[in-house]
Amino acid sequence: MSDIVIAGIGQTEVGEHWEISLRELGVDALHAAVKDSGGLRPQALFVGNMLAPSLSRQAHVGALIADYAGYVGIEAVTVEAAGASGGAALHQAYLAIASGLVDVALVLGVEKFTDKIGPDVDEALASASDSDYEAMQGLTTTAQAALIMRRYMHEFDVPADGFAGFPLVAHANGAGNPYAMFQKAIKPETYAKAEFVSEPLNMFDVAPNADGAAALLLTRPDLLPKDFGHPLVRIAASTVSSDTLALHDRPDPLAFSAAHISVERALQKAGLTLDAIDFFEYHDAFSIYSALSLEAAGFAPRGAGWKLAADGSIGLQGRIPAATLGGLKARGNPGGASGIYQAVEAALQLRGEAGKNQLPAARTALIQSLGGPASTAAAHILSRLEG
Amino acid sequence: MSDIVIAGIGQTEVGEHWEISLRELGVDALHAAVKDSGGLRPQALFVGNMLAPSLSRQAHVGALIADYAGYVGIEAVTVEAAGASGGAALHQAYLAIASGLVDVALVLGVEKFTDKIGPDVDEALASASDSDYEAMQGLTTTAQAALIMRRYMHEFDVPADGFAGFPLVAHANGAGNPYAMFQKAIKPETYAKAEFVSEPLNMFDVAPNADGAAALLLTRPDLLPKDFGHPLVRIAASTVSSDTLALHDRPDPLAFSAAHISVERALQKAGLTLDAIDFFEYHDAFSIYSALSLEAAGFAPRGAGWKLAADGSIGLQGRIPAATLGGLKARGNPGGASGIYQAVEAALQLRGEAGKNQLPAARTALIQSLGGPASTAAAHILSRLEG
Repeated sequence: MSDIVIAGIGQTEVGEHWEISLRELGVDALHAAVKDSGGLRPQALFVGNMLAPSLSRQAHVGALIADYAGYVGIEAVTVEAAGASGGAALHQAYLAIASGLVDVALVLGVEKFTDKIGPDVDEALASASDSDYEAMQGLTTTAQAALIMRRYMHEFDVPADGFAGFPLVAHANGAGNPYAMFQKAIKPETYAKAEFVSEPLNMFDVAPNADGAAALLLTRPDLLPKDFGHPLVRIAASTVSSDTLALHDRPDPLAFSAAHISVERALQKAGLTLDAIDFFEYHDAFSIYSALSLEAAGFAPRGAGWKLAADGSIGLQGRIPAATLGGLKARGNPGGASGIYQAVEAALQLRGEAGKNQLPAARTALIQSLGGPASTAAAHILSRLEG
Repeated sequence: MSDIVIAGIGQTEVGEHWEISLRELGVDALHAAVKDSGGLRPQALFVGNMLAPSLSRQAHVGALIADYAGYVGIEAVTVEAAGASGGAALHQAYLAIASGLVDVALVLGVEKFTDKIGPDVDEALASASDSDYEAMQGLTTTAQAALIMRRYMHEFDVPADGFAGFPLVAHANGAGNPYAMFQKAIKPETYAKAEFVSEPLNMFDVAPNADGAAALLLTRPDLLPKDFGHPLVRIAASTVSSDTLALHDRPDPLAFSAAHISVERALQKAGLTLDAIDFFEYHDAFSIYSALSLEAAGFAPRGAGWKLAADGSIGLQGRIPAATLGGLKARGNPGGASGIYQAVEAALQLRGEAGKNQLPAARTALIQSLGGPASTAAAHILSRLEG
């Protein structure tokens, strides 16, 4: 199989875009990615989106955005896997290029929380959980994360400020990202004094829902001109795994097993071990997700993921830098678009274009995009294509 | 590229299943397809579904159903392209097998109209159109089809009963399909006396929304035992194309251009001309869609598609049999599942298992799955694998 590369990236600022429609956000990111690629013409569009059918009463987003972007007629579909919609859409595009049937594919992650036509946001988000057995009983995504965090703290004797490092690192890194929703570092005492959202989660343990769109252009390197304008990012592996939606039906609610499987398979396919990973873009929708993701990937043993935040390991100068441009917490969490933002940010690091947050020797990245508490997990390994 | 075959098919009866949940419907169809394949173990699941996030407040259907079917851990996503979700999901599974990265893939189409948690059905269905410029103004999918039909009748001088042949053939064929919602032929005078739903569409011009699930198991023939139990159906081509959602923005509202492009590309990829097609499973959500699909595929010139219904050409003994097991009209229209029902029915014909409706020499089928008025069009060419 030929290499598959990211030859174009684009993103919009993350925030509350009351004045910009879903389609406009999407088209802006797509056009930025196409421009970045030097104007390659796509044959297919894979849209990662979770909430448009409920919040915006707009299904059929693939065809809608293909048309508005000026690509009427191309193959276009929406890929949905809750919060992992972005990672899952990237995976479909990867399969399309790998099949040899598509030469140039666009991947778009787009989400618009400020559309208020449908149900309220908590109700729409809860559709990522088991509707009949969880959401129907009133369990929100945030309350579910709080239950997991409480159990984790009990099981592993984690102190009250044990998770503080996750938002502290995220906000410190967000300060270096001009596209981030929050571009300001926070202090430990700010975290300590923050109000609870759903105890033990305080407001800094929860990534903010936000509007945004990010896009990638995928192709094969042999289709590009020799004097291509910027370094290419190779997709060394792309995997998706699933887990039981209903938390009470899992043998172990403190193990993100789909996350574990997806990373293990990705490393295997890339022919790498975890030592080769220079940084980790995890899905920090909640601080507890970050801890469990670090454990699932193998960066920390069970029950010790939180220590990597507490001891500085995930900082830009740490052993395994994470959320290097702010993560979901500081960049913002635009639902199904988050997985594509992660890929854009990893690509910036690998291209050496991450500005103030540039990692000195970033060669290989691991990305983990999650839907619910890792009910779906997409893993991607990206590396700088030398040569 | 190796051949890609349908090695297993499954379906549930189409109807109003108030007592069966979305997940149960889906699992029943999946298990039937796996059993039909002799028990092959899937690595991936592609779910075509349109309405669960709105009507059932259940997103994340891929992971949900993978788990309930007993395949926790496998790759699972939902693919959405409105009414073409089934055809689009089949296309993703085809790409996955073609990539060489997946050996055995399940495709499920599932839809549950009788879940009444979210908005009403008309509002949910209208999300397939342009929400900002069409649905928001009160235009339903049915009203939109009525506008297209009125224009078509005016433009091409079609008599009031010009479309009668479409439902007459569908209901005649539904009588031979034990899974169909309506298994009874209707008479011309029944059509003539039927009440209007949205003039000029009468109730027989509109396929009934219904619950249902249908599934396919895809793999490569070299992975199957030599003594495999039934004939294999080869996917000779799989394409998806898109068109402008907003009807008023199309240069010609009476041309299903995405349908045309998808069929043209499919024939090209299969190395066939239209003469090779033995029967056509079209997307007869509305009689007018059938006429325009016949024209888009090339079976009739512009403005003459309706005549193939009037002159008997689409009957089982006709020149180009269509809706051979009842179509969306008589089998029922389970939204995103319709495209998979079409594939199951075409496979039954090609395997010689279509019972009373068996076509004598069915070797090659064309399937067209549409989202909205062909805003998305998926085309598949299936053929009986000889040898």
